[in-house]
Amino acid sequence: MLIVQKYGGSSVADAERIKRVAARVAGVKKEGHDVVVVVSAMGDTTDDLIDLVKSVTQNPGEREMDMILSTGEQVSIALLAMAVKDLGERAISMTGPQAGIYTDGVHTKARIKDIQCERVKEELSAGKVVIVAGFQGLNGSGDITTLGRGGSDTTAVALAIALNADLCEIYTDVDGVYTADPRVVKNARKMETISYDEMLELAHLGAQVLHPRSVELSKIYNMKLQVRSSFNHNPGTIVKEVGEMEKSMVVTGVAHDLNVARIGIFDVPDRPGVAWTVFKSLAKEHINVDMIVQSAMRDEINDISFTVATTDLKKALAVIEGIKDEVGFTGYNWDDGIAKVSIVGAGMATNPGVAARMFEALAKKNINLEMISTSEIRVSCIIKAEQAAEALVALHDHFGLGEQ
Amino acid sequence: MLIVQKYGGSSVADAERIKRVAARVAGVKKEGHDVVVVVSAMGDTTDDLIDLVKSVTQNPGEREMDMILSTGEQVSIALLAMAVKDLGERAISMTGPQAGIYTDGVHTKARIKDIQCERVKEELSAGKVVIVAGFQGLNGSGDITTLGRGGSDTTAVALAIALNADLCEIYTDVDGVYTADPRVVKNARKMETISYDEMLELAHLGAQVLHPRSVELSKIYNMKLQVRSSFNHNPGTIVKEVGEMEKSMVVTGVAHDLNVARIGIFDVPDRPGVAWTVFKSLAKEHINVDMIVQSAMRDEINDISFTVATTDLKKALAVIEGIKDEVGFTGYNWDDGIAKVSIVGAGMATNPGVAARMFEALAKKNINLEMISTSEIRVSCIIKAEQAAEALVALHDHFGLGEQ
Repeated sequence: MLIVQKYGGSSVADAERIKRVAARVAGVKKEGHDVVVVVSAMGDTTDDLIDLVKSVTQNPGEREMDMILSTGEQVSIALLAMAVKDLGERAISMTGPQAGIYTDGVHTKARIKDIQCERVKEELSAGKVVIVAGFQGLNGSGDITTLGRGGSDTTAVALAIALNADLCEIYTDVDGVYTADPRVVKNARKMETISYDEMLELAHLGAQVLHPRSVELSKIYNMKLQVRSSFNHNPGTIVKEVGEMEKSMVVTGVAHDLNVARIGIFDVPDRPGVAWTVFKSLAKEHINVDMIVQSAMRDEINDISFTVATTDLKKALAVIEGIKDEVGFTGYNWDDGIAKVSIVGAGMATNPGVAARMFEALAKKNINLEMISTSEIRVSCIIKAEQAAEALVALHDHFGLGEQ
Repeated sequence: MLIVQKYGGSSVADAERIKRVAARVAGVKKEGHDVVVVVSAMGDTTDDLIDLVKSVTQNPGEREMDMILSTGEQVSIALLAMAVKDLGERAISMTGPQAGIYTDGVHTKARIKDIQCERVKEELSAGKVVIVAGFQGLNGSGDITTLGRGGSDTTAVALAIALNADLCEIYTDVDGVYTADPRVVKNARKMETISYDEMLELAHLGAQVLHPRSVELSKIYNMKLQVRSSFNHNPGTIVKEVGEMEKSMVVTGVAHDLNVARIGIFDVPDRPGVAWTVFKSLAKEHINVDMIVQSAMRDEINDISFTVATTDLKKALAVIEGIKDEVGFTGYNWDDGIAKVSIVGAGMATNPGVAARMFEALAKKNINLEMISTSEIRVSCIIKAEQAAEALVALHDHFGLGEQ
């Protein structure tokens, strides 16, 4: 078998953990498998580098940000290659560019366009464990790009697809995918399997075990994922296509996300093209908008509210300020003391009334809903951040998701 | 003018120093010059990375060592580019590979083979300050190489030559080149100018202001160097070709080097090819041998002593152990408690008796000479490490090098 394994920052946080990962990698290699390993930066390295940047400037520029952040993974691949070789296996480290990972030109949030993995294949044929830096690639100008937080998952899945791997294992510090964040909901239950669609919604909703783009990619190419812990040998959770018959659970998981901020624009003229101008301007700056609510307050005048990641708030506000005259709204405000709680389940599409049951559970706890959005298999509500944990526990109980 | 500036690790050791370097760079740019800046890793970064490696393995392998060490400069170029941009100048950082610096395949001690600086020229034409990572390049296999300690000097000089720059400024934490290490010899004097040959000998002898290879390169291409401090605006020392008339000083400087170890091989058969076998084997491992002394003890049996850098001692001993049977010597020993003290001066070649005056000065201090070696413009002696400082002061006084 050809197996691609991805180890997150907490799995390689120090020398001891790197040696433990090396032992696991060497073990799989000794069983006769070919192994490609994708690694993130050690522990808090990325945050440390960001702090270092902040000590120099408040406006680093995204190209230079990618230049500095990409060093984190370069350190961990070299250390892991050394540790694997110490165990008697041949190994070689490769940066994203060396592994042939080409991206578009969007610094700090690049998307993989192509993987030219000839050298990776050569080194595998030579019997080596190939250790690739996650999170990074090369754009058309020869500049280093990064894929954004969590991008190492995407690197792993994209490499697995390009190499036609049999399995892509995502190692993390939890045992798999849970019905809710186990740090918040004590009786949260680990799932044995979950469908791509459900995982995608959960990932989008702040479940941090997998990056949404990696799930999207896996779904498109039908690449089997296994989410498991690097600290034990439990089987974890398999993410795969699940048949209709298996969609028995109406709600399979709940999620919450604190990295969310609301922006409201007042007195927007009710003209065609207004929403287009607003969201086009945000998209141009690569700001993802999540929920959008437009409310008709008076004739021909609207308010528009939408949410962005808290980390994009400053940039989004600058965009809004810049288009104020063009669009002709009277003012705007924002709120970053909010959270998004969601329920997810592939069975929801065919079970009416699930959203109402969610609102019931929240109302009983006196939790006010500021915004609501739904998809076929998900309902999300914006609430006050300080009520997020209480809401999560209430929803988990209400839909009977806990251990029996 | 096109100026290449090189800043060492101590000049960019923290955020404040990086901002200070940025101000200096922006100042030169504002005067209307084109500027290429070569930067080393911040302060102790390289040592910290080596410590990190040691916490994982004792046998890192040189390719992986280069992979991890090259991240140090990548961090400092990004930070400096950010800081220069903060001052209103355009700037772009480039890794060694991005700047087109191609090397041979010798990891950890690579030599620059070629510089393809089209992109550097383009960015200069676009009005940007170009900030290049020192110490690193790319070999023919697409792997990252490093040039060895002090290699950033070589990067700067090689870039200056490739770009046909008007001047190459080497910024460091001292005011220029001194007649002796000012930390050891209190009345050491800063030189205004020094010839390539003298600088080359001093650099080889442990004066740490310039890497020998960078001086060698400057001499071959006649690239004017200016060694100066990044902490003030003093003019520093100019390194250039000096005419015969100027070679008035018999001895221009003294130097000492503690990074030296002696290896002795006993009872070497006196056959042709023996020395060749010994030193060929060491060269194959890229171990530089400095002084060699062969003494005929008895008929047809020799002892051979030679010195290597202390940092190469372990590797050198492994080589010696490996060729023991082939060469047929009976044993070997080593001593790393030694130092090399030297006197340098272009005028020595035409002034007989200078070596004798050196031995006199050392004898008067009861300092024993373990090995002696000479070149046209240099005499070096191996003495006990603990007498190095005393020897240096004595020689500096003896040849009247101090401030008047």
